[in-house]
Amino acid sequence: MDIKSKRIAVLSPVAWRTPPRAYGAWETVAGNITEGLVARGWKNVTLFATKESITKAKLTGWVEKGYEEDKTQIPLVSTCLHISKVMEQADEFDLIHNNFDYLPLTYLPFIKTPMLTTIHGFSDPDILRIYHEHKDTYYVSISDSDRDKDLPYLATVYNGIDLSNLTFRPVPGDKLVHYGRIHNDKGTHLAIEVAKKCGRDLIIAGIIQDQNYFDTLVKPHINGSSIKYIGSVNPLQRDVLLKEAYAVIHLNLIPERFGLVMAESMAAGVPVIAMDLGSCREVIADKQTGFLVNDVDEAAHAVGKIEQIDRKKCHQRVEENFTIDCMVAGYEKVYEEIFRRETQKKKMNN
Amino acid sequence: MDIKSKRIAVLSPVAWRTPPRAYGAWETVAGNITEGLVARGWKNVTLFATKESITKAKLTGWVEKGYEEDKTQIPLVSTCLHISKVMEQADEFDLIHNNFDYLPLTYLPFIKTPMLTTIHGFSDPDILRIYHEHKDTYYVSISDSDRDKDLPYLATVYNGIDLSNLTFRPVPGDKLVHYGRIHNDKGTHLAIEVAKKCGRDLIIAGIIQDQNYFDTLVKPHINGSSIKYIGSVNPLQRDVLLKEAYAVIHLNLIPERFGLVMAESMAAGVPVIAMDLGSCREVIADKQTGFLVNDVDEAAHAVGKIEQIDRKKCHQRVEENFTIDCMVAGYEKVYEEIFRRETQKKKMNN
Repeated sequence: MDIKSKRIAVLSPVAWRTPPRAYGAWETVAGNITEGLVARGWKNVTLFATKESITKAKLTGWVEKGYEEDKTQIPLVSTCLHISKVMEQADEFDLIHNNFDYLPLTYLPFIKTPMLTTIHGFSDPDILRIYHEHKDTYYVSISDSDRDKDLPYLATVYNGIDLSNLTFRPVPGDKLVHYGRIHNDKGTHLAIEVAKKCGRDLIIAGIIQDQNYFDTLVKPHINGSSIKYIGSVNPLQRDVLLKEAYAVIHLNLIPERFGLVMAESMAAGVPVIAMDLGSCREVIADKQTGFLVNDVDEAAHAVGKIEQIDRKKCHQRVEENFTIDCMVAGYEKVYEEIFRRETQKKKMNN
Repeated sequence: MDIKSKRIAVLSPVAWRTPPRAYGAWETVAGNITEGLVARGWKNVTLFATKESITKAKLTGWVEKGYEEDKTQIPLVSTCLHISKVMEQADEFDLIHNNFDYLPLTYLPFIKTPMLTTIHGFSDPDILRIYHEHKDTYYVSISDSDRDKDLPYLATVYNGIDLSNLTFRPVPGDKLVHYGRIHNDKGTHLAIEVAKKCGRDLIIAGIIQDQNYFDTLVKPHINGSSIKYIGSVNPLQRDVLLKEAYAVIHLNLIPERFGLVMAESMAAGVPVIAMDLGSCREVIADKQTGFLVNDVDEAAHAVGKIEQIDRKKCHQRVEENFTIDCMVAGYEKVYEEIFRRETQKKKMNN
């Protein structure tokens, strides 16, 4: 049987529409996987998402709108309804690709269809209590570094980014740029220190996730000239922002799970100076598409070496590793491996 | 087969220990059902609760402590783990008695064991989205008034209260008493109005659930003499409090689901003046064990008629309807009906 005729259920969360209007990281990935599979010729793909979602696959859902977009819903009610209904239909699919965290795992003992769970991140170590109860299933990590040592992973499949609205710029801008959510975890205050040490202008963009952090460690340094904050940026504004970038400063203080900002920056040809924590050394090729550093001093020193970086190589690294098509090709391989193992299991049981 | 040999799984929540150390309404009921079944000679009862729970039945659990008592736990993780593990063991039971809301219902399509769900209250209309997906199962309401019109109920089984520490007092005290959680829903401010209209002292007791409500509508009236607030009361303090009661004033502003306070008061021989909303007219026998009223004026008028009430009848009403033994006897009848229906179903399928 042609593998692309297999019946695939892609389970997206129902916090937001798939694809999301603005935010919604997991819905974005689930949507990209679904559309990518269709684009690559998969014939029987069903997206399980909010009813108002948009897809070229078949759409099935029981929740009208994302619970983050319709506050009359109790999130857990929508979550339970959505997940349990998908599980009730399990027999109609050859594979369920779960992008909705740990609750679907609790139905595994009751269904025969294999499930692949992409772990988009462990929001809290406590959720491992559920994961560890379900080791006889299939997992994908979104970076080699974001793995729990006790889970059996089939592969790492990096998130793929949408390259439209990301213009490759061979000529560098002259400013340092720091963008993403403004939070201590993302080291916005460290980007400011680097800029001051180098005497280079810094533009900061992104939603303020921790107002207290912003007010105490970021805002006092903003002066509208050498240190600017421009609020959050949509994809078009992000493209304009990256045009001005000499380098992107990304001194995260906790391990990155994947790091979309780094991939986007490189897609535009912008080298990234990142903290050597978590997935950063997987996304950035050290000294090729940016620099991995361990503190502000190293980061400031790296700014002085930016011209050693070939901006074409930055873009190329994304094209070869972090596009939606790369991601979907990665999942195709994983699906294939799952079908191979399932066939083997059936043979052994006969 | 002796019905009391049937294998019963009582599913308690894991927010608190079963029985709870202090709060934990659903855990209290689940515990009372379990111990009551054992006391009445049921031989195969398993309580599914936190591991540190205490029972004369068999105890099974996967969550060490209640998530309200151990803040390292993510409540949903403990909830999912607990419920899904019970469901995995479903085949080992003849009946699952669910006291843990709607999530267990989502596993119904996957298990063969019948489930009885006691609906301890609809915390939000939105949860009906799950209930309405599962009409082919068994439900019990905790009062005739607390029912959703679209669900098939087998019976109402009133909550049973523990009569130890509730002394019957044939001689009335001379004060009005209002107790329970201090919240607009419970009409504490209306009890104050009634007391002022009657010129009778009022004692208020209970935890402050809405501090703003307490500060603006209750506290300004407290003077330590004619209007007193004594904080929350444990069962022993409650018994002393009820000794002083001429009547209990319970002018709830939203429908009661059951109304423990009314049953406890009557157990001590204290007549209750209650708003005619929700289950109040099921718990109180109007003009026999108290008065149902519609506003403060009617309540004040009812205070003048309290001596028409036979305090023995108040106590008797509780003994005949609202003890733990009454509750468990009620559930026995429901279990019997479920087993009858299940046998019939099996016959029809053969």
